[in-house]
Amino acid sequence: MLIIMKIGATKQQILDVVQAIEGIGYQAKISKGAQRSVILVHGNIGYIDESYFKKFMGIRDIIHISKRLKLVYRENNGGADTIVDLGDNIVFGDRSAQIIAGPCSVESREMIMETADFLSSRGIKLLRGGAFKPRTSPYSFQGLGDKGLSYIHDAAKKYNMKIVTEAIDEYSLSQVMDVADVIQIGARNMQNYSLLKKCGAIKNPILLKRGFTASIDDLYASLEYILSEGNPNIIVCERGIRVFEGTKQRSIIDFLGVSDLREESHLPVIIDTSHATRERAKVPGLSRAALAFGCDGLMVEVHPDPDKALSDGPQSLSFNDFDLMLIELKKISGLFSKPLKFYKEQK
Amino acid sequence: MLIIMKIGATKQQILDVVQAIEGIGYQAKISKGAQRSVILVHGNIGYIDESYFKKFMGIRDIIHISKRLKLVYRENNGGADTIVDLGDNIVFGDRSAQIIAGPCSVESREMIMETADFLSSRGIKLLRGGAFKPRTSPYSFQGLGDKGLSYIHDAAKKYNMKIVTEAIDEYSLSQVMDVADVIQIGARNMQNYSLLKKCGAIKNPILLKRGFTASIDDLYASLEYILSEGNPNIIVCERGIRVFEGTKQRSIIDFLGVSDLREESHLPVIIDTSHATRERAKVPGLSRAALAFGCDGLMVEVHPDPDKALSDGPQSLSFNDFDLMLIELKKISGLFSKPLKFYKEQK
Amino acid sequence: MLIIMKIGATKQQILDVVQAIEGIGYQAKISKGAQRSVILVHGNIGYIDESYFKKFMGIRDIIHISKRLKLVYRENNGGADTIVDLGDNIVFGDRSAQIIAGPCSVESREMIMETADFLSSRGIKLLRGGAFKPRTSPYSFQGLGDKGLSYIHDAAKKYNMKIVTEAIDEYSLSQVMDVADVIQIGARNMQNYSLLKKCGAIKNPILLKRGFTASIDDLYASLEYILSEGNPNIIVCERGIRVFEGTKQRSIIDFLGVSDLREESHLPVIIDTSHATRERAKVPGLSRAALAFGCDGLMVEVHPDPDKALSDGPQSLSFNDFDLMLIELKKISGLFSKPLKFYKEQK
Amino acid sequence: MLIIMKIGATKQQILDVVQAIEGIGYQAKISKGAQRSVILVHGNIGYIDESYFKKFMGIRDIIHISKRLKLVYRENNGGADTIVDLGDNIVFGDRSAQIIAGPCSVESREMIMETADFLSSRGIKLLRGGAFKPRTSPYSFQGLGDKGLSYIHDAAKKYNMKIVTEAIDEYSLSQVMDVADVIQIGARNMQNYSLLKKCGAIKNPILLKRGFTASIDDLYASLEYILSEGNPNIIVCERGIRVFEGTKQRSIIDFLGVSDLREESHLPVIIDTSHATRERAKVPGLSRAALAFGCDGLMVEVHPDPDKALSDGPQSLSFNDFDLMLIELKKISGLFSKPLKFYKEQK
Repeated sequence: MLIIMKIGATKQQILDVVQAIEGIGYQAKISKGAQRSVILVHGNIGYIDESYFKKFMGIRDIIHISKRLKLVYRENNGGADTIVDLGDNIVFGDRSAQIIAGPCSVESREMIMETADFLSSRGIKLLRGGAFKPRTSPYSFQGLGDKGLSYIHDAAKKYNMKIVTEAIDEYSLSQVMDVADVIQIGARNMQNYSLLKKCGAIKNPILLKRGFTASIDDLYASLEYILSEGNPNIIVCERGIRVFEGTKQRSIIDFLGVSDLREESHLPVIIDTSHATRERAKVPGLSRAALAFGCDGLMVEVHPDPDKALSDGPQSLSFNDFDLMLIELKKISGLFSKPLKFYKEQK
Repeated sequence: MLIIMKIGATKQQILDVVQAIEGIGYQAKISKGAQRSVILVHGNIGYIDESYFKKFMGIRDIIHISKRLKLVYRENNGGADTIVDLGDNIVFGDRSAQIIAGPCSVESREMIMETADFLSSRGIKLLRGGAFKPRTSPYSFQGLGDKGLSYIHDAAKKYNMKIVTEAIDEYSLSQVMDVADVIQIGARNMQNYSLLKKCGAIKNPILLKRGFTASIDDLYASLEYILSEGNPNIIVCERGIRVFEGTKQRSIIDFLGVSDLREESHLPVIIDTSHATRERAKVPGLSRAALAFGCDGLMVEVHPDPDKALSDGPQSLSFNDFDLMLIELKKISGLFSKPLKFYKEQK
Repeated sequence: MLIIMKIGATKQQILDVVQAIEGIGYQAKISKGAQRSVILVHGNIGYIDESYFKKFMGIRDIIHISKRLKLVYRENNGGADTIVDLGDNIVFGDRSAQIIAGPCSVESREMIMETADFLSSRGIKLLRGGAFKPRTSPYSFQGLGDKGLSYIHDAAKKYNMKIVTEAIDEYSLSQVMDVADVIQIGARNMQNYSLLKKCGAIKNPILLKRGFTASIDDLYASLEYILSEGNPNIIVCERGIRVFEGTKQRSIIDFLGVSDLREESHLPVIIDTSHATRERAKVPGLSRAALAFGCDGLMVEVHPDPDKALSDGPQSLSFNDFDLMLIELKKISGLFSKPLKFYKEQK
Repeated sequence: MLIIMKIGATKQQILDVVQAIEGIGYQAKISKGAQRSVILVHGNIGYIDESYFKKFMGIRDIIHISKRLKLVYRENNGGADTIVDLGDNIVFGDRSAQIIAGPCSVESREMIMETADFLSSRGIKLLRGGAFKPRTSPYSFQGLGDKGLSYIHDAAKKYNMKIVTEAIDEYSLSQVMDVADVIQIGARNMQNYSLLKKCGAIKNPILLKRGFTASIDDLYASLEYILSEGNPNIIVCERGIRVFEGTKQRSIIDFLGVSDLREESHLPVIIDTSHATRERAKVPGLSRAALAFGCDGLMVEVHPDPDKALSDGPQSLSFNDFDLMLIELKKISGLFSKPLKFYKEQK
C-alpha cells in the first residue's frame, strides 16, 4: 500500500501514519519528494483494508499495490492460459475459436431436434438451449424446465453434440449438472455469489456471462468466487454492457474489455453477438467484428422459425441467416486471429 | 400498439401491416397525417410482442401503449398506496418516515446487543444486521450465518425491535423467514428472479434494493415477480446507482427515481444513505437531503466501533456520529415531507 | 402526437385534453381501447411542445410522432445516401472505405513531411494532423497553430494528399478554411453550436466527431445545426463513448450506433480506432473489427516516433505498426463490406 | 510516479525500467515486497507522461503521484477557500448561500422587468436570463441576442440586481462582458477550451456548469484552463449528470460530486435544481435536498408564465411556485449548512 500525503502535511501527521502502520505489524518507508512525502507500506502479504487509515489527517490518497483477489489474475497463474476441455476434441482457450449456437429456449422436442440436426450438419458441436430462463417479465415464457432438459439431452445425444444450458438457482443447477457439458450462468445472476459458489464446487465447466452493468473488476470478483471453490473450468462471455444511451440499443460489446480479460486473466473469453443487438439483421456484422477482433468463440441464437420464437425471437437467426453468416465468417476465420473450429467438412 | 410508418411508405406497405395485424386477431385503424400514416392496433388486452412486425418494410417505429407489467403500477392499484404494516404500530408507506439502523453484519452477540440497546434508547424500532452477506470478494467476511441470525433475534427480542436482515439464496431465505420481520434482498440479487419468486410466495414483508445499475423499468419487473406470486408487502430501497464517474464514488442517489417510483408505483420507497457514500463523513449530508426531498424512510449503517467493523466500516456511523445526525434530522423532520417516526420520547 | 390517458381517466379529463388540443388549432381523435383511451393529435406539420399538456390530469404518457429535426434523417433525404466528394476521385459514402492517417498534432515540418512521404507511399491520400489542439490539460502541448497549418499544407502539396485538420474556435476555423480539404470538429466541441453554425455556412466538408458522451440523438441535433445552415458535406466519426467502467479504458466503440447512424441518417460514417484504445497494441484489433463490421472509413493516428510524440503517443502507431496493420486490413477489405480504397498499387 | 512490477518480473526487466528512469534524469528507488517489486520515481517536479514506460516488459501498473493540474486543487491554494465577491455585499463561497433566479431566456423587455420586479421584492439579488442560448435543436428559440442583453441590463439596473447571463462563443462573450456581473458558460461548452481561455483572460466572474457527462476530473481540467489564464473568480455549478437510465429523466444531481469539489478544490459550488428535473413539480424537492445537503447557492428557473415560455417552460417555476418553494427553503435555511442570503426583509 502506498499512502500519499498532502502537500504541506506536517511532520506529526506523517509520524502518526507511520505509527499506525507499525501498530498493525507492518513496516513504513517514508520517501520525501520535491513536493510531498509518500509512505510505502511493507511486510503485508495480501490486501490491506484502507478504512483504518481514513481517519488520519494529511493523507491525500491511498493506493493499493496488492490486489484483493488472487486466482483470477494471469500473473498468479504463472502466466499460463487455462484450457477448458469438454472432451471429443472440443476445447476452449487453445488455438481455435468455437461456435455455440441454438435457440434461446428449448420450446419443444421437435424444434431442438430440428436445430441440432441443422447445426451438426454445419459442423457445429456446441448446442445451446435454455430449459430454465430468467426473463425480465414474470409473464414471459420461463422455459420448459426438466422437460426441456430432457429434450436437449436427447437432441445432443442423437446428433453427438455438447450441451450448453443455463442454471438459475439451486434446483435448476442440480438438474442441469447431470445433463450439461457447460453450465451457463446468465448476466442477471453474475453477482449471485451463492450460486457461483455452488458452481465452484462442481466439476462441470461454467460459462459465466458478464453482467450488462458489471465492471471488469466486478467480473473478476465473480470469477474468483467460482475459482476459489475449486472449479478452474470457466469460459467467460461478454454480451454487451449498458450505456447512457438507453433508447437506441440494448447494449454495446466491450471489445477492449475482452482483450483486458484475455491479458489480465487466464480464462477463455467468448462473445455473445445476439444479445447486444436485439435485431437479427445486425448479428452477422457484430459476429464478423468479434471474430476479426479476436476471441475464443462466438455464441449466437438460432431458431427454426424466429418469428414464432417464445423468447428472443427478434435477435434469433433463421437457419438461412445462419448459413449466410457462416459464409462470411469462414472468409475471415483464421486470417489474423483464432480460426473457427468446425467438426466436419463443409459443403 | 401504435405503428408509425415512414414518410413515403407505400400504400402496399401500409396494407401489408394492416393485414398482419388483422391476421393475429386485432383491429387496425389507419390515421393519415400531414406527413405520414400511423396505424393504431386495437382489440388487444395486454402487451403485443413487436418482433412479429419487425420484418415489414416502411415502418419507422413501433410504440407500445399497453405495458408488459401490471401489478406494479399505481394505475392498476386503483391509484392507492400500499401500506406495509409490521405490527406494533410500525408501518411503511403511511404518513411518517421510518429509520432502519444497525451494522452491515452481525459480528458477535455482544455487538448486536450493544447496538440494539443504543438504537432502542433513541427511539429506533427497526434493527438491521446481516447474517448472510454477499461480499464482492470471496475472501471478505461472509457473515456468521445461522449463528448471526440467532444473535439478532435475541437482541431484537430483548429490546423489542423489528428485524431487517438479508437473504441471499434459498437456504438463507428458509432460515431468515422464521426470524425476520422484513427480509432484505440486496442490490446484487435484484434480478435473481428465482429468489424473488420465492419471496413472493411467503408472507414476510420484503425490502428490495434497486440494483446499482438497474433502470426503474428493471426494478418494476423485479417487483412484479414478487407481486405476481402473491406478496404485496414490499418496501423498495434506492441505494444509489453507478455512473460513468467510476473513480470518485461508489454510486449516486437517484432522487428523481425515488419520486418516479412513488408516482408510478404504489409501494413505499426508502433511501439507503450509507452505501452510496463509502465514507461516513458524508452520510449525514445525504440523509438530510433524502429527508428533505421526501421518502418513506432511511436506512443507515451504525456500528459500535466502525474502524474495526468486519464489513462496510468506512461508511458506518459510530453511535456518536448517529446521535449528531439525529439532531440534524429532527430539525428537518416533518417540515415539508413525512416526519421521522420515533418510538419513545427523546431526551 | 399521441396522448395516452391513464386507466380510469374520467370523461371530463379526456374532454379537457381534447379542448386544449383544439384550442391551439389541431384536431383530436379519441380512440377507446379495452383498458384506456388514447388521443391522436392531427393537423400539425412539425413537432408539438408537450409542456403545454403537462398540467392536465389523467395523462399517463405523451408520445411524439413528428420529430424535432428534419434534414438529418434519411427519410427526409428521399432515402438517398449523401456522398462527400473531395475531388481527385476521393469520395466518402460511396462503395469504398477511406483511410485517414497521420499524427495527432503537426509537431514540426520534418515530421509531417516524413509521415506524408510514408503514407502516400502506401496509397493513403488523406493526411490528418492538428495545428490547433484542444487538450484536456492547459499545460499539454496545444499545437503549433498557423505554423502547423503551413507545414501540413506543404506536406500535402508535395505528396499530393488531402488535408484533414481540426478547428476549435472561430479564429482557427478562419485559418483552417483556406487549407483544409476536410475540417474536423472534435468530440469536445460536438455541442459547440456556435462553431457548428459557422461550419454550416462554409463550403469545406466537415468531419464531426461524436462526443464521447453524446447520444445518437444529441449527434443528430449537432448535425442538423450544420445541415440547416446549408453545408451538406459532412462525414460523421464514431470514436468511442464513455461508459460506467471508468478505470479500464477510455471509451468503447459503439458499433450498433454506427449502423443506426447509417440507417437513420444519410451521411457517411467513419470510425476512429485510435482514441478508444489509449494503447497502440489494440488499434489493429479494433481496426479489423471496424472494417469487418462495415463503415465508410477508418481514422488512425500514425507518428514517425510515437514514444516521443507530443500528444497521443501511447495510441499512435509507428510506421512499422501501420504496415503490419495494413497487411491484416487488406485481407479483410472488401470481403463483405466496403473495400478499403488505396490510391496506388501496393507492393 | 510509482511503477508496480508484475509478480515474477525478472531482474533484467526491473533494471531496464530503472535505466529508463535515470535516462530521462530522474532517480529510481526499488522496493522489494513480499510478492513483487515496486519502483518509486523521484526528482520530478510535475506530472510524468507514462507513455514512455508502456513499452517495457514486466510492468503491471503505473501510478501517478503528482497530478497534471495545479491551480484547481485546494492543497495548491494553501488550503483556503476562494471567495467570489460581486460587490454590494453579494458574495459566493463565504458563510451564506445565494439564490440565482430568472427565466431561461430573456424573451421580452416586459417579461424580464416583471421577473426582476418580483424577484427583487423577495430579496433575490441575482437575476439570470439568457440572451444567447445554445439549444439542442437549431429550430428552437436561440435567444434575442444583443437586444436581450440590453433588456436584462435595464431590468437589473432598475431593480438593483446583479446579472448572470450566458456566453456561447467569442462574439457573445465580447458583448456579455460589458453587461454581466457573472458570465455563465453552459454545460455543452464546458470543454470548449478556446472559450474557457478567453474567460480566463477577463475580469468578470465566471459561472462554469459541469457538463452532464463530464467527470469531476474533466471539470478540474476545464477550471484549470480558466485559472491558468489568470481569472480566479469562478463559481462552479452542478446541474445533474447523464446516467444509463435514459428514458426516465434528464439527469441526476451528483451530490457527492459537489462535496468532492468542495473538499478537493477551493471554489464555491452551487446547484442548478431546474435542469435535472425537466418538470417543475420536482424542483422544490430537489432544491430542499440541495440546501439540506449543503452548497454555496441554488440556481432556479422562474418565469412569469411558464406554459408560454419559449425555452425550458416545463421546468420553470411560476412566481407562485417560487413563493411556495421559498417558504419551504426558509424553514431549512441555516439549520445545518450555509443559510440562504436574502437582501431585504421578507413579508
